[in-house]
Amino acid sequence: MSQTYEIFDHSVHLVADLSGIFIFAVTGALVAVRMRFDVFGIMALAEITALGGGVFRDLVIGDVPPAAFRDMGYFLTPIIAGGLVFFLHPAINRIGGAVQVVDAAGLGLFSVSGTVKAAVWGIEPFHAAAIGVATAVGGGVLRDLLAMEIPSLLRRDREMYALPSVLGAGTVAVLLQFGLLGPISSGAAMLATFVLRLLALRYGWRGPLAWKSEQLPAPGGKEPGQGRGAGRGQPVS
Amino acid sequence: MSQTYEIFDHSVHLVADLSGIFIFAVTGALVAVRMRFDVFGIMALAEITALGGGVFRDLVIGDVPPAAFRDMGYFLTPIIAGGLVFFLHPAINRIGGAVQVVDAAGLGLFSVSGTVKAAVWGIEPFHAAAIGVATAVGGGVLRDLLAMEIPSLLRRDREMYALPSVLGAGTVAVLLQFGLLGPISSGAAMLATFVLRLLALRYGWRGPLAWKSEQLPAPGGKEPGQGRGAGRGQPVS
Amino acid sequence: MSQTYEIFDHSVHLVADLSGIFIFAVTGALVAVRMRFDVFGIMALAEITALGGGVFRDLVIGDVPPAAFRDMGYFLTPIIAGGLVFFLHPAINRIGGAVQVVDAAGLGLFSVSGTVKAAVWGIEPFHAAAIGVATAVGGGVLRDLLAMEIPSLLRRDREMYALPSVLGAGTVAVLLQFGLLGPISSGAAMLATFVLRLLALRYGWRGPLAWKSEQLPAPGGKEPGQGRGAGRGQPVS
Repeated sequence: MSQTYEIFDHSVHLVADLSGIFIFAVTGALVAVRMRFDVFGIMALAEITALGGGVFRDLVIGDVPPAAFRDMGYFLTPIIAGGLVFFLHPAINRIGGAVQVVDAAGLGLFSVSGTVKAAVWGIEPFHAAAIGVATAVGGGVLRDLLAMEIPSLLRRDREMYALPSVLGAGTVAVLLQFGLLGPISSGAAMLATFVLRLLALRYGWRGPLAWKSEQLPAPGGKEPGQGRGAGRGQPVS
Repeated sequence: MSQTYEIFDHSVHLVADLSGIFIFAVTGALVAVRMRFDVFGIMALAEITALGGGVFRDLVIGDVPPAAFRDMGYFLTPIIAGGLVFFLHPAINRIGGAVQVVDAAGLGLFSVSGTVKAAVWGIEPFHAAAIGVATAVGGGVLRDLLAMEIPSLLRRDREMYALPSVLGAGTVAVLLQFGLLGPISSGAAMLATFVLRLLALRYGWRGPLAWKSEQLPAPGGKEPGQGRGAGRGQPVS
Repeated sequence: MSQTYEIFDHSVHLVADLSGIFIFAVTGALVAVRMRFDVFGIMALAEITALGGGVFRDLVIGDVPPAAFRDMGYFLTPIIAGGLVFFLHPAINRIGGAVQVVDAAGLGLFSVSGTVKAAVWGIEPFHAAAIGVATAVGGGVLRDLLAMEIPSLLRRDREMYALPSVLGAGTVAVLLQFGLLGPISSGAAMLATFVLRLLALRYGWRGPLAWKSEQLPAPGGKEPGQGRGAGRGQPVS
């Protein structure tokens, strides 16, 4: 396959990847602790949250076996994150804002690096961006499903999560299309995703509901926003 | 791979595929509107409902990257469907019966075309039929899971959905086995699926419960049929 | 690919595989009966529970199409299991303990055979063990998700299920690492998994909750352990 788009030095890429995996594993483990899963459930949810998006990406682009099953660091990082959360969850929850900031960094990183990897494997830029978004948000969707919560990605009572990812991945796609992708421009795309997510959190930006949705009957059960669950970056208070 | 089973002209196939994707995207977007997901949730559920079954089919048969990540039409069609639902959902719900009819057409189309594509890729006829059924119903199962509903495919309080798909895909398998598959016979299999689904809707046909299931204790929570959700083809009233 | 690790005669392997598939299909069909799914829902949940883990394993290691879509026995065995449960579920539930014992045997079998198959396909031993665990527990996770239950794998109110699987698969990984894997040692790993799971059931062994988890606020909804559902090996009483 072409390596034209390999914009990062391999070791930079690995460190960045493992950082993102660590953060997403922390969010998975925090949900597991809140749901009172036992230590095995904590580790399982940490692994699935951290690696789920990347495994989907690799299956779709044909990089089999997925990187998560080739590199021991990918497998051990969520275990370390789960172990830290197992002991330190009260302290981590106290710095909940910090977790959200780092989660936003993970979102930017995976949106961009997932798009780049898909493009390296020969996917056209705009489809690569779709795969990049799936890489960034996929693990969180699996985490929420396994905790029986409506994925916070989809919920209106959560600050915008998809849009920053779409923006970052889409920027990379445009750069790829015009042959302009480089370390600086891809770093800028990561930063834009990160900042937009932080702004959404800071100012409570949410996506619009469907037009005339006030005409809808009340949902039969409970409001989707009133479940027992908190989502990514909404730690136990 | 063998192209022996390529029974449709490519452009016919593409138009049919995109029509089915459009319809399934509409059902996903309607569920998202009813769940009060925001515009990103509506688009995400439209994409996943429309493309989920086909992505699973392509991963299983080895057509990687899946067609959904190669052809821009596959990606844009759910966006268009989601945009229409965003603005027009009150009107679409008013013609709910029409949506169910077109959904039945999508079921017939995907059951047959999924089976044919799997066979083209070298899967034995009866396994190809299983893949065809998964193609037709897979997106709807993902849609219901993401909306935290028991998949309507499985529920007894929904008219039969799996049986028409199994019938259509199984007919194609028998035709393949005997070398009789052609445009007319495969069209007839689509039509049979479509008509059987319409009859099930019209006359409320449902599958039998397990033998002696009246002896079962009442489920601990609520009846599976009484959740807040409606499934495929059960629009907001 | 290397066949170095092919430690079982093919027919032994097939019989063992189909036995495990049969048992997992029974647990899926029992959940479907309890949820009052109709006959198609029963068959679908039997198939997905029995084959889900193996399909994931095969997609990840690159054995495409997955074995479940190549061998008719894999497809028919869950149908037979579903048919038996359809008629005999009252009797099967009466011997619930027996089902749990055989389920424990399936757990041992799939944990070991999944690890071996992944290693045969060139996955490094410890990643192969992760795939083996996913093979053994994956179908049950899908079963619980489709029945809208928190996977019993993750729940603290269920006896340990993951640890025996991790132990069995990890033992195989160590044996592979040192070139010691053979029919006897792999049989011992299966037996250890089986016995540990039985001991966990007999003595109610559960994994520890997170440290200081008594400080957590009560979950917003209900206790995860009080849902309407029972999990693998918890038949309707």
